[in-house]
Amino acid sequence: MNLPESINPRRDTRLDSYVDSYAQRTHGLTVSAVRALFSVANRPEVVSLAGGMPNITDLPRAALGAAMDRLITERGIQAMQYGSGQGEPFMREHIVEVMAEEGIQAHPDDIVITCGSQQALDLVTRTFCDPGDVVLAEAPSYVGAIGTFRAYQVQIVQIAMDDQGIVPQALREAMISLRALGKRVKFLYTIPNFQNPTGVTQTLERRREILAVAAETGLLVVEDNPYGLLTLEEAPIPALRSMEAERVIYLGSFSKTFAPGFRVGWVLAPHGVREKLTLAQEAATLSPPVFSQFAIATYLEQFDWRAQIDVFREMYRTRRDAMLHGLAEHMPAETTWTNPRGGFFVWVTLPEGLDSQAMLPRAVTARVAYVPGTAFFADGLGSRNMRLSYCFPTPERIIEGTRRLGEVLHSERELNETFGIGTTAMRYLDSSSSPAPDIS
Amino acid sequence: MNLPESINPRRDTRLDSYVDSYAQRTHGLTVSAVRALFSVANRPEVVSLAGGMPNITDLPRAALGAAMDRLITERGIQAMQYGSGQGEPFMREHIVEVMAEEGIQAHPDDIVITCGSQQALDLVTRTFCDPGDVVLAEAPSYVGAIGTFRAYQVQIVQIAMDDQGIVPQALREAMISLRALGKRVKFLYTIPNFQNPTGVTQTLERRREILAVAAETGLLVVEDNPYGLLTLEEAPIPALRSMEAERVIYLGSFSKTFAPGFRVGWVLAPHGVREKLTLAQEAATLSPPVFSQFAIATYLEQFDWRAQIDVFREMYRTRRDAMLHGLAEHMPAETTWTNPRGGFFVWVTLPEGLDSQAMLPRAVTARVAYVPGTAFFADGLGSRNMRLSYCFPTPERIIEGTRRLGEVLHSERELNETFGIGTTAMRYLDSSSSPAPDIS
Repeated sequence: MNLPESINPRRDTRLDSYVDSYAQRTHGLTVSAVRALFSVANRPEVVSLAGGMPNITDLPRAALGAAMDRLITERGIQAMQYGSGQGEPFMREHIVEVMAEEGIQAHPDDIVITCGSQQALDLVTRTFCDPGDVVLAEAPSYVGAIGTFRAYQVQIVQIAMDDQGIVPQALREAMISLRALGKRVKFLYTIPNFQNPTGVTQTLERRREILAVAAETGLLVVEDNPYGLLTLEEAPIPALRSMEAERVIYLGSFSKTFAPGFRVGWVLAPHGVREKLTLAQEAATLSPPVFSQFAIATYLEQFDWRAQIDVFREMYRTRRDAMLHGLAEHMPAETTWTNPRGGFFVWVTLPEGLDSQAMLPRAVTARVAYVPGTAFFADGLGSRNMRLSYCFPTPERIIEGTRRLGEVLHSERELNETFGIGTTAMRYLDSSSSPAPDIS
Repeated sequence: MNLPESINPRRDTRLDSYVDSYAQRTHGLTVSAVRALFSVANRPEVVSLAGGMPNITDLPRAALGAAMDRLITERGIQAMQYGSGQGEPFMREHIVEVMAEEGIQAHPDDIVITCGSQQALDLVTRTFCDPGDVVLAEAPSYVGAIGTFRAYQVQIVQIAMDDQGIVPQALREAMISLRALGKRVKFLYTIPNFQNPTGVTQTLERRREILAVAAETGLLVVEDNPYGLLTLEEAPIPALRSMEAERVIYLGSFSKTFAPGFRVGWVLAPHGVREKLTLAQEAATLSPPVFSQFAIATYLEQFDWRAQIDVFREMYRTRRDAMLHGLAEHMPAETTWTNPRGGFFVWVTLPEGLDSQAMLPRAVTARVAYVPGTAFFADGLGSRNMRLSYCFPTPERIIEGTRRLGEVLHSERELNETFGIGTTAMRYLDSSSSPAPDIS
């Protein structure tokens, strides 16, 4: 397969006559060359281990369709009308029940519904961050969060993590250094469960330590937990928010436990913050998707959503196991990877001398795609890493994907050994990666 | 009826411990006292002429329910999945057809789908405006737009209008003065059809003049057109965008021509701007409501949406006529109002000495509600005005509402004549009004 010209970085010949009129924040937003490559990666012959799309084929569509029919026929007048800027009260009550599954005690009045949890992140950043403020995040962290922080001209400082999550001492030292520099650190953004992109989960002990550092340094914590209920092994570990209510802003989502197309996420925040978030939501959308809230409430009321999550767990467990099996089988020596206990992702570290970003066009030519590690760092690190997703392809395709990837890695290593490190790959791809949904 | 304590301005006794951590932009967001009053106004015994909610009872709900059942059963896998950050291609193609009804020729690639057209406004402001930049708007203008501009710390300069819309010479003079002051004027925000709040429509000649001033002064125009197809008299006047493609950003919505609960609006913009808006949308939501786009496309494909708009027109025409009839019957002398040829709103100017904002609690006590004119000005003007909506209540309720309002006005005038101007009313209501959906 030859790569089409479209994977070259975009060089649009049309002039943008508004380039002098944009806000400062807009100049940081650029189209990533990686995006063009992913349009190739989405072809059916390519096994994409890049996307973060959940597999929703197991949802009971016929029964859902019938329930939506009744919803519109019987309550369509309310479900299709404008709604509350904060989100519908019944939806917020259901969310309290959902969060209780992870040990969180909350009041519906402290929740704001959002257009997916991406918008929760947007509203929180908008509410707290002026240009130049600092946000702390894991190294590496979710590409979509990095994109949102950049869109608000925030300085992102990424904190070292190990196989138990953020290293508390690294967090403490960063706070001390940044304060000494006079920086305004607005919050720590963290994904404690099955982190995107690493698949790493903070242990209970580690969570306590992180909260202790936060208390000690006066740091607000933004806990993003889209995958928490998709645990593939033991019961969920209590959320940070379940241990500390006043210092934690919690972001949740139905995108992975039900379906992303309804675009319903939420923020749970201390009361004063919640009030600001509601005002921000009204300025941003008047009200978050109303029909979607009725649809999801209908699902939660009329279906056994806990049993459905068990179905999802079983399905993702099989895929996770396929990926770990495929990696053990096909990766060259000196390649390592994480062992996720839930969620969607495995984080691979390549042998020295290999560059995941430079290698991507070659991998796509070999009909396998991944997200280069550089996408998850604000500063260009991560070139020896890649994120592999096991959420969307079938187990057979996952194994085939790891086989193809193994071949690419083996041949890259051989080339390196023959011609010297780093000379083999195309190097034109830039490191800034915009958060397109297929690489979230 | 006595007013409950809850209509007093909120004095929350709980301290907000994050008050020092918020971004600059957040400090401008405050809860309006008007909002508390509207929670009273929403009681069934009150005739609310305040809300901007469309009346969607005429939609064919049973048939719509059946169509949604088929959609989920047959295409649920796509409709409930993540989608494009720019919006689904089929949705953008349909929008091209809808806009053609108002003379607009466009390409689907130049459209970005948004979570209601409020989010279109948010993304456009985010893309263009730094703090301190100037946006021009009509005097008065949509309360939700003023809220969004404020949320981005934009200086709002409102331009005089007459019964044909913005006065071109006033626009020209404002541009000259602001440029002389070194201000960066980012765009003119205008609602040419059945404007919110005045109900005024720009004539074709006036549109040409406004575009001529824009060309002459290098001004970008943001045309907000949610009501355009709800014309109650002659055929629609061509949109500004149909006369000038490169200098106009066009905002559209399905909220008034179909239903607001799906939260689907759009922006049509010159190519370079569209690219920035897409990136902003991805940072804000990953993708706008996906299921909603499938639902609306299903509606447009399987139902006679043009005939449905004719049904809406007929229904709103009856209500508009009821309101004009009621006003003629019940308003005291020296009260004037606009004569809308479409849309939802009538703009009333009270006799000298009456203050619509101060009078509002008294009106709600008399079981009628409206939006005080001050909500539509950034600078506290509008105290002799009120916006009355005829979109939501039945014609009988509209007439009863104008009767109650007439009584309040008559008794206010008598009190003024007895005790002197301006002493009679409660004055604690603040002038900043947040864009709650019920007062949009």
